[in-house]
Amino acid sequence: MEITPFPLVLASTSPRRQQVLTQIGIKYRVIAADCEESFAEIDAYKAAQVLAERKAVQVSSQCSEVVVGYDTLVLCEAKLLGKPVDEQDALNMLRLLSNREHSVHTGICLAQNGEILLSDQEITQVFFRNLTEAELTFYISHEHYLDKAGAYAIQNLGARFVKRVNGCYFNVVGLPVSKTIEALEQCWRILHERKNTFGT
Amino acid sequence: MEITPFPLVLASTSPRRQQVLTQIGIKYRVIAADCEESFAEIDAYKAAQVLAERKAVQVSSQCSEVVVGYDTLVLCEAKLLGKPVDEQDALNMLRLLSNREHSVHTGICLAQNGEILLSDQEITQVFFRNLTEAELTFYISHEHYLDKAGAYAIQNLGARFVKRVNGCYFNVVGLPVSKTIEALEQCWRILHERKNTFGT
Repeated sequence: MEITPFPLVLASTSPRRQQVLTQIGIKYRVIAADCEESFAEIDAYKAAQVLAERKAVQVSSQCSEVVVGYDTLVLCEAKLLGKPVDEQDALNMLRLLSNREHSVHTGICLAQNGEILLSDQEITQVFFRNLTEAELTFYISHEHYLDKAGAYAIQNLGARFVKRVNGCYFNVVGLPVSKTIEALEQCWRILHERKNTFGT
Repeated sequence: MEITPFPLVLASTSPRRQQVLTQIGIKYRVIAADCEESFAEIDAYKAAQVLAERKAVQVSSQCSEVVVGYDTLVLCEAKLLGKPVDEQDALNMLRLLSNREHSVHTGICLAQNGEILLSDQEITQVFFRNLTEAELTFYISHEHYLDKAGAYAIQNLGARFVKRVNGCYFNVVGLPVSKTIEALEQCWRILHERKNTFGT
């Protein structure tokens, strides 16, 4: 089980992403990305990947290590849900998700020196129970929902909403684990080939 | 969102089950079950449920509250996997699970005064990546696997093994969340009807 084969920078201050990366034995340091998170102008199906690319590329221009960026969005009934702007927005999102299937898209991008090495996305289907207004009221008063795409976190109180998932669970948390391991292995091969070709 | 509608006892000392139950806002106290965990004589498909029943019934004879018991087993290629007995047993289990689908069965039983109120099980399909011997060696030397059915915990380093799940993720952790919420609601209705019928 390789532990990170090269120095890695995580372009995210999300404690959830840091916790999962640490859990699977990957070493990294954090540099916060400072770029536009708006997805209004991007094709919904590719938005998470495009935003992950922006973050990774932006941070990789500030350091020499390989940078991994992520972005997570929720797609339900052709509507793309990012982080809610206020309580009403959060309630509207959760009412939309209630008793329905949605998909969670997490984009992952590895970049170095401002250049994309590889970019991909993971999609997981999530099925919510039928949520009562009483549940939503309780949730809104007890949970920090403002920094969560779709207004819920499956690893917190939001676990109550989820009947089942189909796909990578950790993708719903915001960091697709097996996709990340594959991407790091692929990236290692890319860097190794370049080294052999250019002798740098 | 009801918080536990009646006093609840959890018949499990598993820190994972306690953590999930706390996460979803359910209050409980713990009484450890003391009964046989062998499943050699039980039909494989029903074993987790039968063991959950034994735990709940045994503990419910020691207290007046409603007791919830759980048991989690792994079924792969018609072989039922409990907790490994040693390192070699754990390695054999993980080699069997590698690059294959298996199912995780968690039995749930609610009991009171030595009598089963309701009993059910949740089944989740889990798909493992192809694991290398190097990964397994690293895992065995870094993880506490002896108290885990199938020798892995999805919420620890074992997350690396899991490509995807189909069903309730928390079932793989050992406590099916939406099934538990439904069971508590159903149990509340059963107790309420009895009270109305018998006036007790």
